[in-house]
Amino acid sequence: MKDLVNISDVKHHVGETVKIGAWLADKSGKGKLQFLQLRDGTAFFQAVVFKPSFIEKFGEEAGEVKFNEIKHLAQESSLYVTGIIKEDARSKFGYEMDVTDFEVIGHSEDYPITPKDHGTDFLMDHRHLWLRSKKQMAVMQVRNALIYATYAFFDKHGFIKFDSPILSGNAAENTTELFETDYFGSPAFLSQSGQLYLEAGAMALGRVFDFGPVFRAEKSKTRRHLTEFWMMDAEYPFLSHEESLDLQEAYIKALIQGVLDKADGALDILERDKDLLKKYVETPFKRISYDEVIDLLQAHENDEDTDYEHVEHGDDFGSPHETWVSNYFGVPTFVVNYPASFKAFYMKPVPGNPERVLCADLLAPEGYGEIVGGSERETDYAALLQKIKDNGLQEEDYDWYLDLRKYGSVPHCGFGLGLERMVTFVAGNEHIREAIPFPRMISRIKP
Amino acid sequence: MKDLVNISDVKHHVGETVKIGAWLADKSGKGKLQFLQLRDGTAFFQAVVFKPSFIEKFGEEAGEVKFNEIKHLAQESSLYVTGIIKEDARSKFGYEMDVTDFEVIGHSEDYPITPKDHGTDFLMDHRHLWLRSKKQMAVMQVRNALIYATYAFFDKHGFIKFDSPILSGNAAENTTELFETDYFGSPAFLSQSGQLYLEAGAMALGRVFDFGPVFRAEKSKTRRHLTEFWMMDAEYPFLSHEESLDLQEAYIKALIQGVLDKADGALDILERDKDLLKKYVETPFKRISYDEVIDLLQAHENDEDTDYEHVEHGDDFGSPHETWVSNYFGVPTFVVNYPASFKAFYMKPVPGNPERVLCADLLAPEGYGEIVGGSERETDYAALLQKIKDNGLQEEDYDWYLDLRKYGSVPHCGFGLGLERMVTFVAGNEHIREAIPFPRMISRIKP
Repeated sequence: MKDLVNISDVKHHVGETVKIGAWLADKSGKGKLQFLQLRDGTAFFQAVVFKPSFIEKFGEEAGEVKFNEIKHLAQESSLYVTGIIKEDARSKFGYEMDVTDFEVIGHSEDYPITPKDHGTDFLMDHRHLWLRSKKQMAVMQVRNALIYATYAFFDKHGFIKFDSPILSGNAAENTTELFETDYFGSPAFLSQSGQLYLEAGAMALGRVFDFGPVFRAEKSKTRRHLTEFWMMDAEYPFLSHEESLDLQEAYIKALIQGVLDKADGALDILERDKDLLKKYVETPFKRISYDEVIDLLQAHENDEDTDYEHVEHGDDFGSPHETWVSNYFGVPTFVVNYPASFKAFYMKPVPGNPERVLCADLLAPEGYGEIVGGSERETDYAALLQKIKDNGLQEEDYDWYLDLRKYGSVPHCGFGLGLERMVTFVAGNEHIREAIPFPRMISRIKP
Repeated sequence: MKDLVNISDVKHHVGETVKIGAWLADKSGKGKLQFLQLRDGTAFFQAVVFKPSFIEKFGEEAGEVKFNEIKHLAQESSLYVTGIIKEDARSKFGYEMDVTDFEVIGHSEDYPITPKDHGTDFLMDHRHLWLRSKKQMAVMQVRNALIYATYAFFDKHGFIKFDSPILSGNAAENTTELFETDYFGSPAFLSQSGQLYLEAGAMALGRVFDFGPVFRAEKSKTRRHLTEFWMMDAEYPFLSHEESLDLQEAYIKALIQGVLDKADGALDILERDKDLLKKYVETPFKRISYDEVIDLLQAHENDEDTDYEHVEHGDDFGSPHETWVSNYFGVPTFVVNYPASFKAFYMKPVPGNPERVLCADLLAPEGYGEIVGGSERETDYAALLQKIKDNGLQEEDYDWYLDLRKYGSVPHCGFGLGLERMVTFVAGNEHIREAIPFPRMISRIKP
C-alpha cells in the first residue's frame, strides 16, 4: 500500500486527494456532518464527512447508506479514508480532510477504553490498547526521540556500542535484588547494570556504551521504580572526572534538544513547558559537592517553604532533599564527591580525602530526581581488591574485573542513565510506569 | 585528557607532534630500534623508538635508561606516547609515529594471551582480554556499524523504536526453550522474541521496531547458536507481503553498505572479500518459493558437487540445503511461502492455498544460512483463535494478542533479524560466538 499517506505527512499534500490507513479514535456529529478523529500512529487529525457530498457522488440511496455506515462506525474501527487535505487554522494540528470516500477494514465492538475515566489498573491491564491513546503515543514518541538522540550523540563522539551480557554466572552484588534463573543446572542472574563488562570493553575498544534492559528485583513500590528498565551506560578511558562531567552535560543537552527537534508535536500533546526544556539546553548545569549541598540544606532547613529532614555530613539524603536542591538551582545539578560509604566499591577516592569519591549524580529539576550516576573508577589493583573485601564481596566473582587493573590499567570514567527516568522528566509525567511500552512492577508482569 | 589524539585520527596530523594514550599490543626490535605495536581501541599502528634520538634529547645516561625502559616493557602495558606522525606506505594502516617521549601509565606482567596459539576455551575464559586482539576488535567494529546502520535505516523509513518487554508472565510458546525466573512468587519467562508485543505497538504507533536481547534455552551446540543474542524485530501496518520483502531487502543492503562505509578498516583486518559484499548491495536479491526450491533441490540432488539429502514437498530442509540454494544463486535469497505446518501459528495463509503461508526466510550466501525470517500476519480473529487451538496453545495466554484482531484489525507484516548471524556473515567469521562481546552458550556463562 505504498500509495498511503501518513497523517504526519498530510501537510505536504494540501489541496490534493490522498488516501490514509487509520483507526477511528473518536467521532462526533450533528445533522449532515460527521467529524472523525483519525489516528495512524504518526499523528491524530480530523476528517469531515458531509452527507450531501456523498449523495452527490454516490447517488441518493448509496450515499445515504454510506453516510449511515460511517455514522455508526464504532471506536477503533480501522479504515482506509480518501479525501482532500485542507489547512485548518482552528486546530492545533493545522490540517484536516474533507472525506470523499472510505472503506472499512476491520470492525471494533465494545472497545474497552472509552473517553470516560478509567483507573490506572484497568488501563494497565489493557496496556496493549491503552498505547493507542493520544498521550501514550506522545510519550512513546518522546522515548523514541531520546533513543535516536543517544545513538547520534555517541556516534558523533566516537563511541562503539558494546552490548554487555544480561545473563551472568556471578552474582556480582547483593543477590536479594537479582532475578535468578536456572542455566542448564547452574544458577545465573539477570544483569542490574552492564558497567563492569563495559569497563572491559573500554580497555579493548576505547569509548564504549551499552543501552539495553536491566533488572532489579527490588520490592520498591514508588512512582520512580520499575523492575525492568532500559539503561544507557558509557565508559571511556583517558578522560578526567571534570571532562567526564562535560561529556555527561553535553549528552543530556543533546537528549533534550533531540526531543525538541524530533517530537515537538508530542511535547505539545503532553503540554510540556518547552521554554523550560530550552532553558536546560542553553544554561550551564550547576556543579556542587555533596558537602556543599549538606551545608546548603542545613542553612535552609528552617525556611518557610522547605519540608525535608535535617541531614548531617556523612548522611545519605533522600528525594525531598534532591527535589529542594534541584529546584534551588533551577537547572540540572551535578552533586559530586559523595561519601565513599554509600557509593559503589569501584569508585576512585578524591585525592587527599579517602572518605569521599570522585562521583556525580545528576539531579533533574522540577522534582524529577536523579537521572544520571557516574564516577571515575579505581585503577589500582591493590586498592580495588581491598575495597572488594571491605564490602564483603567475593574476590573470585571479580577475578576478570581485577584483571583490568593488572594488565595496563588506565584512568577511566563512566556514567549510566535510566531511560525511563529521562522520559518521565522530558515528557513531564508523574509516574515512570508510562515511560515504557509494557511496564514491569512488583505486581505487574502482564500483558 | 582532551589533548590526546586517537590512532584512527593520526592521518589528520601528519608532520605534527601528537600524544596518544595506548596499550602495547606487541613489540620487536633490533639494536638501536624498537618497533611498538600500539592500540587504543580505535586502531592499531606502529611507533618507532630510535635510541640515538632519546640520547640526543635526554642526554647519554637518561636516554639510555629511557630506551631500556621501553625495550623491557611488557605486552599490554599502558602508556602515553608522544611523537611525530609520518606517512608509511609500507604498512596497510598507512601511518606510523617517530617516538619523542613516553610515560608508562600501568604495567602488565605475564599477560595471558600471547602471540602464540591458544585454544578457544582458553580464549573464551579470558574473553575480557581477548577482546583486545586485532581480530576481535574488528568484529566488534562490524557489529557496531550494523547497529548504527539499523537505527539510520529505521529512522529514514519512519519507524519508532518500541522496546518489547523481556520478562513476561505468559509462557507464550514451548516452555522447554524458555528461561524461567521467580517473579515475586509467580513464574516469569525471558523473551524469545518481542514480535507479539511489537504487533500491539504497530496498531498503536504505526511502523515500529525493537532491538534488544532475547533468550533461548536450547541445548543446541552448533556454530550458529547462542542462548542470549540480539534480535531486531520490525512490524508495520498497511504493507503487502511483496512490499514487506522490498523493505527487508533495502534494510539488509543498508546494513552491508553501513559496514562498508563505517568499518572499512575492520573488513581489511578480517580479510573479508569486500567486492562480494558490494555485489550483495548492488544485485537484486533472489525470490523463490519453497515449492520451487524443493523442485530445484530434487533436480540437482544427483549433481556431482551436491551433498544434501533428498527432500519431498512438505519436508523441512536443513542447513546443507540452505547452503546449496544460496550458493546456487550467489546472492541473498528469499525463500517464500513455506508449509504452514512448520511455521508459527500467526502467519497468514497464501490466498487459495491454506497449506502454505505468506512468509519468507532470507538465506545469506556463502553458507551463512538464515539471517532473516518474516511473514504477513493473520488478521482474522476466528482464524487466529483456531490456529492457537490447533497448535495446542492456551487461549488465555493470547487474550491480549487476540484483542488486536478484535479492535480494528489491519493488514500487517514484520520480520526479525538475528544480529550475531548478520555480524558473522558480514565479518566472514566461522562461528557465531565471536559476534557478541560476552557470548552465552550451553556451557559458557562466564566471565
